[in-house]
Amino acid sequence: MSEHALHDLLEALRRLPGVGAKSAQRMAFHLLQHDRDGARRLAAALLAADQQVRHCRRCHTFTEAEVCATCLDPRRDGRQLAVVETPADQAALERSGSFHGLYFVLMGRLSPLDGVGVHDIGLAPLLERAGDGTVQEVILALSFTAEGEATAHVAGQALAARGIKVTRLARGVPVGSELEYVDLSTIAHALSDRR
Amino acid sequence: MSEHALHDLLEALRRLPGVGAKSAQRMAFHLLQHDRDGARRLAAALLAADQQVRHCRRCHTFTEAEVCATCLDPRRDGRQLAVVETPADQAALERSGSFHGLYFVLMGRLSPLDGVGVHDIGLAPLLERAGDGTVQEVILALSFTAEGEATAHVAGQALAARGIKVTRLARGVPVGSELEYVDLSTIAHALSDRR
Repeated sequence: MSEHALHDLLEALRRLPGVGAKSAQRMAFHLLQHDRDGARRLAAALLAADQQVRHCRRCHTFTEAEVCATCLDPRRDGRQLAVVETPADQAALERSGSFHGLYFVLMGRLSPLDGVGVHDIGLAPLLERAGDGTVQEVILALSFTAEGEATAHVAGQALAARGIKVTRLARGVPVGSELEYVDLSTIAHALSDRR
Repeated sequence: MSEHALHDLLEALRRLPGVGAKSAQRMAFHLLQHDRDGARRLAAALLAADQQVRHCRRCHTFTEAEVCATCLDPRRDGRQLAVVETPADQAALERSGSFHGLYFVLMGRLSPLDGVGVHDIGLAPLLERAGDGTVQEVILALSFTAEGEATAHVAGQALAARGIKVTRLARGVPVGSELEYVDLSTIAHALSDRR
């Protein structure tokens, strides 16, 4: 076989999340047959991102500067700090347009089965960040999954032990959904948290 | 915003087939947070493949040599030529272990709606290849989709007009399937081609 380059490309594509053997083949075929320019651009973008993207010193999200644009924005309310799992979650909160405080991005969540423990998520930096004297409330905007709940539990306890006010997102019936199709656990939470 | 590198990476990932905004975000996050080495490897593999991978002069498949290993294999029977749409289809035929002839890879199929016409698939090279004096039978191993059928029709007529024997894969009930769940068109074909 003299097809090392093609083989290496398939292997490298398969390392992407959600990409199996068939998808990798389809991607490689598409790039080599129809979009060579796209292949070169993706290579350049990967190298540039690897070199330039790092973590914001304050909120830990991806940024190319020392401190990200959100943390530097003087219009944001530094008294509220929302803790999210990923930049994607942060972006979702931003799109809702209902939060004007600052963020702390854990870049993960507790997942003992995958070997992600308390030290792998940025718990110590979060405690330091939340204790800056300005933060009055930490909003744990974490997923309502088993792993998100565990993360919220650990982070909430550690923050509360330092006397910081901790809240979580409300659990309840999603906007636009019919009660008939909402799962029972959500209905139970919506009932007990009724207002 | 000072996040050009991240933005460019997301855009480049979205150009891959089957990758939308959410998948691109997940891939970028994974590479930057958990697999920087994978990002660099993918970049290197893309550049190497772009520089080294070209088309086999005989069968048109991807190769890094002038002529691919399959075409050079003296144990293969040059009297039979299987026409396939993509290298993936060729690989599927190879895995079946039931074909020992040579291949011609069209690298596509007729698709007028997508602007893929007769000149975009390698019909002229196929006619030249099939007329080398050794080929006695051209097996059209194309998809049984509307586009594959159209491709087979055009290629079959052009080959037959040159006096070359043309056959197609049998249509019928897949191995391991229960008749009850096979679609009606397949059953009709299996009936009319019964043996």
